[in-house]
Amino acid sequence: MSKKNALYCQSGGVTAVINATACGVIEAARKNPEVGTVFGAKNGIIGVLREHLVDTAQHSDAEIAALRHTPGGAFGSCRYKLKDMETQRAEYERLIEVFKAHNIGYFLYNGGGDSSDTAFKVSQMAKAKGLDVTCIGVPKTIDNDLPVTDTCPGFGTTAKYIATSVMEASLDVESMAESSTKVFIMEVMGRHAGWIAAAGGLAGQTHDEPPQIILFPEIPFDQQAFLQRVKWSVENHGYCSVVVSEGVRNQDGRFLADAGTTDAFGHAQLGGVASVIASMVRDELGYKYHYAISDYLQRSARHLASATDLEQAYAVGVKALELAVEGRNSVMPVIKRLQDDPYQWEIAVAELKDLANVEKMLPRDYITEDGFGITEACRRYLQPLIQGEAYPPYKANGLPDYVRLSQQLTPQKLPAFNI
Amino acid sequence: MSKKNALYCQSGGVTAVINATACGVIEAARKNPEVGTVFGAKNGIIGVLREHLVDTAQHSDAEIAALRHTPGGAFGSCRYKLKDMETQRAEYERLIEVFKAHNIGYFLYNGGGDSSDTAFKVSQMAKAKGLDVTCIGVPKTIDNDLPVTDTCPGFGTTAKYIATSVMEASLDVESMAESSTKVFIMEVMGRHAGWIAAAGGLAGQTHDEPPQIILFPEIPFDQQAFLQRVKWSVENHGYCSVVVSEGVRNQDGRFLADAGTTDAFGHAQLGGVASVIASMVRDELGYKYHYAISDYLQRSARHLASATDLEQAYAVGVKALELAVEGRNSVMPVIKRLQDDPYQWEIAVAELKDLANVEKMLPRDYITEDGFGITEACRRYLQPLIQGEAYPPYKANGLPDYVRLSQQLTPQKLPAFNI
Repeated sequence: MSKKNALYCQSGGVTAVINATACGVIEAARKNPEVGTVFGAKNGIIGVLREHLVDTAQHSDAEIAALRHTPGGAFGSCRYKLKDMETQRAEYERLIEVFKAHNIGYFLYNGGGDSSDTAFKVSQMAKAKGLDVTCIGVPKTIDNDLPVTDTCPGFGTTAKYIATSVMEASLDVESMAESSTKVFIMEVMGRHAGWIAAAGGLAGQTHDEPPQIILFPEIPFDQQAFLQRVKWSVENHGYCSVVVSEGVRNQDGRFLADAGTTDAFGHAQLGGVASVIASMVRDELGYKYHYAISDYLQRSARHLASATDLEQAYAVGVKALELAVEGRNSVMPVIKRLQDDPYQWEIAVAELKDLANVEKMLPRDYITEDGFGITEACRRYLQPLIQGEAYPPYKANGLPDYVRLSQQLTPQKLPAFNI
Repeated sequence: MSKKNALYCQSGGVTAVINATACGVIEAARKNPEVGTVFGAKNGIIGVLREHLVDTAQHSDAEIAALRHTPGGAFGSCRYKLKDMETQRAEYERLIEVFKAHNIGYFLYNGGGDSSDTAFKVSQMAKAKGLDVTCIGVPKTIDNDLPVTDTCPGFGTTAKYIATSVMEASLDVESMAESSTKVFIMEVMGRHAGWIAAAGGLAGQTHDEPPQIILFPEIPFDQQAFLQRVKWSVENHGYCSVVVSEGVRNQDGRFLADAGTTDAFGHAQLGGVASVIASMVRDELGYKYHYAISDYLQRSARHLASATDLEQAYAVGVKALELAVEGRNSVMPVIKRLQDDPYQWEIAVAELKDLANVEKMLPRDYITEDGFGITEACRRYLQPLIQGEAYPPYKANGLPDYVRLSQQLTPQKLPAFNI
């Protein structure tokens, strides 16, 4: 029987190192005699349904190696959630047709919580239909909210970027505070879980160092306590540096920055909480402020990658391919921490059903009692994840040498399919 | 006669490399037998008036060397403009007293346009009073809007950070565009001059590469033309990446960010032009968007310094000290470009009176005819300024090893002075 091909999808919000995972998958496949070609689905599961497949055989070893240092999603990602098999029977049948048409034996789905759910459903379908396709989830999310795994590839780099940026901007505001800006506010991602906000706390080693305040989505916002703390910090340190999660909610459970719109998964689209917080500081305390919204910068900042994160992102890609070839259906390679300091980890294997649609929140004992800082336990957990610098190569013009892969599609064998 | 001391002030918005200039000043002074100690004024001219002086003799050579890789203003900066000598006679007299009390022979004022004005006024006062104090301006501003000099130390690093960030975030939005975010907007500084916005244009080499649109403060905003261009870009590239200067004005000359509008979330505007632009995109075109406001991050991103910028920042510090010792009152060391490619430059000397209160705008022929991009002439000018990577050292914990200098003040010799 002919070798089976692999199909690799990127899903959900991309990261600075998701392409390092793609690199791991493809490089492992190129060394594995049991694997034919690796297809990259153009725009994730949407590309599978449309039979928009990029045959990576067209890409040189050097181009694939360059994925390791290129942010964004090289094949395009998507926000598209498969419903259950009864509701979307036509879509599942289409997946089977595409798998068969392109001799897919290994299906690798690289994403976060929602994507694990998609991968799990496809794996169940494959089993139910007796298809010879192994479905593997591959972890990725800057939100760091997947259960089971010690951390999620992508998070460490975001954490390093946020901690460094908070450190740098805090030195700036401290310089300006005597006669100008006294409060700096940095808005970070993390809709439900405060992992990224917590990473901002690494910028300081003690409670006297910035950020003086972190606002977590896990802690209901208390305006009076917040303003008191800002005032105290300005009066005692001369300035106040604040990290605020986009997902901070008021006492009624509503997002402080609710846009009223939702994304494809039905999640509220957030952004702009920094300006809400800034208004309070201005109106109630009269301090001059500045705020930054790092938005996509924090998840694409490959120029400041954590070497630890990069290594893990690559390793889960390699392991995913191995698991697929071993026929381990419906699993995900995850990171298992062996010790904190020096950090030691290995790749373990988890069941997809244990990862789908479960969000891992910041434990309460990672947040200080007053709700505005991180504890030593939190530092112990976070610190290793930002260790090491993995810079991209730069061109002579002073910019990173990121690769763009040709997106030439492999010839279609099936009729068109509308999604 | 005893050696004269030097007094160094940081003024205006700080940069990622202003401390490299401080390092240049102090290292040059330590090698110069004609200079006693170097005092850093705590919070710029305010610290001089208050007689809050930090004697840098307390800082080791290693600490001073570390200033080269530490962002922010090590001695504190200020926003405080001296008026003319008649209006603020008491303040000028106080400066003279402080200079005399601490045997100041060299006064080095590190700032932008307003600061050049302050340095010029002090130099004129020194001359008028027959004081033996040489006043030197030292250039610094991420806005790059000083005349005479080829570029302003601080700008090259901001430019490199913005170009890299736009490149990275554009790879992100391109990955997401098929089923999610189609428009990414990056707000940058530069209230009057579009140099930083133009630097965003370096992210792409051709008109097909992001950013597809740049909005300059020099070009009155044309909403219809802008929206048409966004639509065209989304229809042809799948997405649109926009760089917008905080200083963009409408046809009436009013800042878009001060236009009395509300942002995408109905909050009163707080100076975030990105959210004004985002609202238009949502309301008129219905595209999902994301926006980033890099704010202080763009001027403190020492982690991504331009080696060229760093070298120039250090060189103007060294030269400023030399000029002071040579008795060249009322001048500023500036950058003179000798050739574009490969970039060659040298330090020249300009008269402070030619720099004070003059803003250098982006020339019209640096902006494409349609007003949305940069020309080849602009690229030729900008490209050398972001060349080379000058990373800070990192600690084992994964964060930059930035120095914090003791701010121990030298004993005061004069009565207190209220400003």
